[in-house]
Amino acid sequence: MLWHMASGSIRVTVWNEGRHERHKPGVADAYPNGIHGALAEALEQAGGFEVRTVLLDDPEHGLSEDVVESTDVMVWWGHGYHGEVEEEIVDRVHRRVLSGMGIVVLHSGHFSKIFRRLMGTTCDLKWRDEGEREVLWVTRPGHPIVRGIADHFVIQKEEMYGEFFDVPEPECTFLISSFEGGEVFRSGCAWLRGAGKVVYFRPGHETFPTYYDPNVRRVIVNAVRWACPAWPPEEVRYGRREKGW
Amino acid sequence: MLWHMASGSIRVTVWNEGRHERHKPGVADAYPNGIHGALAEALEQAGGFEVRTVLLDDPEHGLSEDVVESTDVMVWWGHGYHGEVEEEIVDRVHRRVLSGMGIVVLHSGHFSKIFRRLMGTTCDLKWRDEGEREVLWVTRPGHPIVRGIADHFVIQKEEMYGEFFDVPEPECTFLISSFEGGEVFRSGCAWLRGAGKVVYFRPGHETFPTYYDPNVRRVIVNAVRWACPAWPPEEVRYGRREKGW
Amino acid sequence: MLWHMASGSIRVTVWNEGRHERHKPGVADAYPNGIHGALAEALEQAGGFEVRTVLLDDPEHGLSEDVVESTDVMVWWGHGYHGEVEEEIVDRVHRRVLSGMGIVVLHSGHFSKIFRRLMGTTCDLKWRDEGEREVLWVTRPGHPIVRGIADHFVIQKEEMYGEFFDVPEPECTFLISSFEGGEVFRSGCAWLRGAGKVVYFRPGHETFPTYYDPNVRRVIVNAVRWACPAWPPEEVRYGRREKGW
Amino acid sequence: MLWHMASGSIRVTVWNEGRHERHKPGVADAYPNGIHGALAEALEQAGGFEVRTVLLDDPEHGLSEDVVESTDVMVWWGHGYHGEVEEEIVDRVHRRVLSGMGIVVLHSGHFSKIFRRLMGTTCDLKWRDEGEREVLWVTRPGHPIVRGIADHFVIQKEEMYGEFFDVPEPECTFLISSFEGGEVFRSGCAWLRGAGKVVYFRPGHETFPTYYDPNVRRVIVNAVRWACPAWPPEEVRYGRREKGW
Repeated sequence: MLWHMASGSIRVTVWNEGRHERHKPGVADAYPNGIHGALAEALEQAGGFEVRTVLLDDPEHGLSEDVVESTDVMVWWGHGYHGEVEEEIVDRVHRRVLSGMGIVVLHSGHFSKIFRRLMGTTCDLKWRDEGEREVLWVTRPGHPIVRGIADHFVIQKEEMYGEFFDVPEPECTFLISSFEGGEVFRSGCAWLRGAGKVVYFRPGHETFPTYYDPNVRRVIVNAVRWACPAWPPEEVRYGRREKGW
Repeated sequence: MLWHMASGSIRVTVWNEGRHERHKPGVADAYPNGIHGALAEALEQAGGFEVRTVLLDDPEHGLSEDVVESTDVMVWWGHGYHGEVEEEIVDRVHRRVLSGMGIVVLHSGHFSKIFRRLMGTTCDLKWRDEGEREVLWVTRPGHPIVRGIADHFVIQKEEMYGEFFDVPEPECTFLISSFEGGEVFRSGCAWLRGAGKVVYFRPGHETFPTYYDPNVRRVIVNAVRWACPAWPPEEVRYGRREKGW
Repeated sequence: MLWHMASGSIRVTVWNEGRHERHKPGVADAYPNGIHGALAEALEQAGGFEVRTVLLDDPEHGLSEDVVESTDVMVWWGHGYHGEVEEEIVDRVHRRVLSGMGIVVLHSGHFSKIFRRLMGTTCDLKWRDEGEREVLWVTRPGHPIVRGIADHFVIQKEEMYGEFFDVPEPECTFLISSFEGGEVFRSGCAWLRGAGKVVYFRPGHETFPTYYDPNVRRVIVNAVRWACPAWPPEEVRYGRREKGW
Repeated sequence: MLWHMASGSIRVTVWNEGRHERHKPGVADAYPNGIHGALAEALEQAGGFEVRTVLLDDPEHGLSEDVVESTDVMVWWGHGYHGEVEEEIVDRVHRRVLSGMGIVVLHSGHFSKIFRRLMGTTCDLKWRDEGEREVLWVTRPGHPIVRGIADHFVIQKEEMYGEFFDVPEPECTFLISSFEGGEVFRSGCAWLRGAGKVVYFRPGHETFPTYYDPNVRRVIVNAVRWACPAWPPEEVRYGRREKGW
C-alpha cells in the first residue's frame, strides 16, 4: 500500500455522479466542466494535491482497487443516483476509510451509501430549494479546517438544509449555518472512523455556483488537508492473540 | 450525605442574583416575583420537585453547606454580579457537582464562576440586546430534555447570543437557535463532569417574559429531571491503592 | 406505535442465537435454560420488566414487526451465526433503534450485523479463549449504568477481548477491563444513534457462567433501564419544508 | 503575536518543577540533566523543534509574557509543588492555550493548576509507586500521536496510575494502560479547549528512566507536533455585535 509522504502531494480522488450536468437544466451552465471539474480546479489552484476525477458512469464507478488504494483523500458529490452505486464498491471505499483514507462528503452526498454506512444512521434532514441566503458561523476557531475563514461567511443563494440532521453527535462541529427562512444546520462536522477521518461540509447545490465561492473552496481545501493520513499507519492486528510480549 | 430517593421529590435549589429585579428598569415588571420566582413556579406547576430559592445577598449567597448538601439539582441565573460570588462558595458547589449534583445554567449564567470553572474555558460569546425573534431547533430528538418539544419552537423577543460560544465541544447538543439577525447559537448543551451532569440552556433575558413561555418552562423542567442523580453514587476512591482484590 | 409509560414495565426482547446451547459442548451445562434464559431471569428478578426471549431459528428470527414495534429495549447475544440474520430484519431493528428503542449488545454480539450497522465500523478486536481473570474498572462513577457497582469488580474466568476495538469513540466509556494476560478493553460503552441509545457490554462467553454473576447482572439491568425511552418521542420531520412558522 | 510558520520550527517550552532532581534521592541519578533536560533532548533529537526549558524557581516560573507569547506548544512536568505556581501565571498560560497554544501534560502534571483549570474537574486518580510493568495499548490507530507505535508497548518499571481518572470524557483516547497489579488507566487522552489542543500522557515517574524510552519519546514528539497550531488563528470576536454583514 503506497501512502502519501509528507514531502509529496496529497492524492485526491474527486467522485461525482456527473449526470445532472448532462440532464438537468441549468447545471451545465453553472458547472461547464462538471461539479468535479470545479472541485478539482479549487484543489489544483491551492496546490499540493494530485487530483483525479471519476464519475458514476465510469467502469466500477471509477473506483477500481488501484484507484482506491492510491487515494489519500476522497471527495464525494452525489445527489440523484445514490442507489446505483454498487455495494461492492461501497465496501471497498469503506474498508479504505477505516484503514486511514480521509473522505470529505459534500452537500447531497449526505444520502450517499458510503456516508450512511460510515455514520450508521439515516443522515436525513429538512430542505427547501429556493435559493436562500446562508450564513455559516465558525464554531471551532483554531481548527485547521477553518483556517483563513473569518468568524462567519455568507453565501447569497443556496438550497436550505435544516435540522434535525440525523448523524451521530459530531466529534467536532466547526460550522453552523442559518438560512434566510430561519432554519439552522450543522454544516461542518468531523468524525474519526477506524484510522480514517470523515468530514461533512454542507454547501454546494448543483444549480448554484457555490463551488466557485472562495470561502467554500478554502474550507474544502483545508478539509482535504486535515483528512489526509500523512504517513503509513501501523498495521492494526485483530483476531487471536497469544499471551506474552 | 442524603440523596433524593426515586420515590421522592427532586430537591432543587434555584439560585438568582436577585438584584436586577430591584434596580434595573422593567425587570420587576417582567418578573414581579423575581426571576427565581418564575423558575420556581415552573417547577412547582410541573410537580415532583421540592423547590428552594436563594439569592446572592443571602448569607453565604444562600448556599450554606446544608443547602448545597441537600440539593439534587441547582438552577443558576446570574448576570451583572458574577464577581461577587465568593470563591469558597464556588468551590463548594463545584465539589457537589463532581459528586453527582446536577446543575442547569441559564442564559447569562454562561459567565458565572461556577460554569466557567466546570467548563475550563472563557464561555464568552457574541450578543445584541434588541429583542429579536429566536427559533430553537431540536438537534437530538428523543433526548429526555426535549421531551414534549416539537421539532422547533419560537420565542418572539429575546436577546441575541451568537457563536463562537467558547465551551468544550458539548457531549450532546440538543437545541440550536437562529436569530432574526442571522446569528446561530448552541442553545442547549450537556456535559458530564465527575459524577454530575451539567446543562446549559440559553433563553431568559431579564427584560423579556421568557420564563413564562411554556416551551422554555418545559425544557427547564426536563433538564432538571435529566440532571438529577436518582440514587446515592458509589464512593469514588482515589489515592494510594494496595495490590490485590 | 405503543411506548412504555413511566408507570409501566419496560418491554424487553432478549435475542439469542440459541444454537451453541444445542451443539457446542459445555454450553448447555453452563446455561441449561439458554443464554437468553439466564438473561431473562436476571431482568425478571430485578423487576420492572416485561421480558420476551426470541431465537435465531424462530420465524423472522423472532423479530416480527409486531415484536419489534412493541419492544422498548432489545438485548442481543450472538456469536457463530451472525451471517444468517436476514438483512430485512436488521433494517427493521435498525429503524426501530433510530426511532428511540434502546439496544444492549453483549459480548460476541460486537460482530452482529445490527451492531456493525449502528457503528459504521468493523467492530473487530483481539481475543483469546482461555478463561482468564478479568477486572472491570468503573470509568464514569455516577453513571446510571454502574449504579450499585463499586470502583471495580472481578470475573474469575472469561474470554479475553483486547484493544484495538474498532468502534467510534464512545460518547461515554463506563467500564474498562484488564485481563490476566495484560490486555485491556473498553468493556462498557454508550452511544446515541438517532433517538435511540446503544450500549455495548463485553462479558459473557458461552462456556463461562458469567451471566449468573451478580455484578454482571446488575450492569445489564441498569443498562436496559438507562436505554429505555420512557415516553413517546416527538415525530421527527424530514424532507421539504415550507417557509414560515 | 508571532506564530510558528509551517516552514519553521515548532517553538516548545518545557516546564519542569526541577526540585526533585536536587532533593529527592535517586532522581538526579535517573535524570542527571533534569527531567526537562531529558524531554528537551528527545525533542531535539527528533528535529524540527526550537526547545526552551524553564523551571519553577525561575523568575515568573520561567513563564514571562514574552516566553508564553512565543511558545507554540508547552510541555508540563510537575509533582510536589503545584501549589507554588502563581495564579497569575496560570491565568497567562490558560489564556494562551485558549488562543491556540498546544499543551502536553505529563504524568503527575495531572494535578497541576493549569491542567485542572483546563479540565474543570479534580483530575484525581489512584496510584501505587512500586515499579510495576505497564503495557500501553493503542486505542486509536492512525492517530498522528501514535504514529510509529505498534499496537502496544511495554515499560518495565513505572508507577501505577489507576481509574477512575476524574477528567471530562476525552475527545480521543489513544492509549490505555494495564499494570502488573491489574489496574487500568486512560494514559493518552486529547481534548480541544478554545482554539488550543490539550494532551495528557501518563508515563514518567521521576525515579524511573521512562523519558529515555524510545516509545515514550516518540509519543511525546508526536504529541507536540499534533498540538502545534501551525498558523495564525483568525481573530475570535466576542461581545456586542451590530446587525448585518
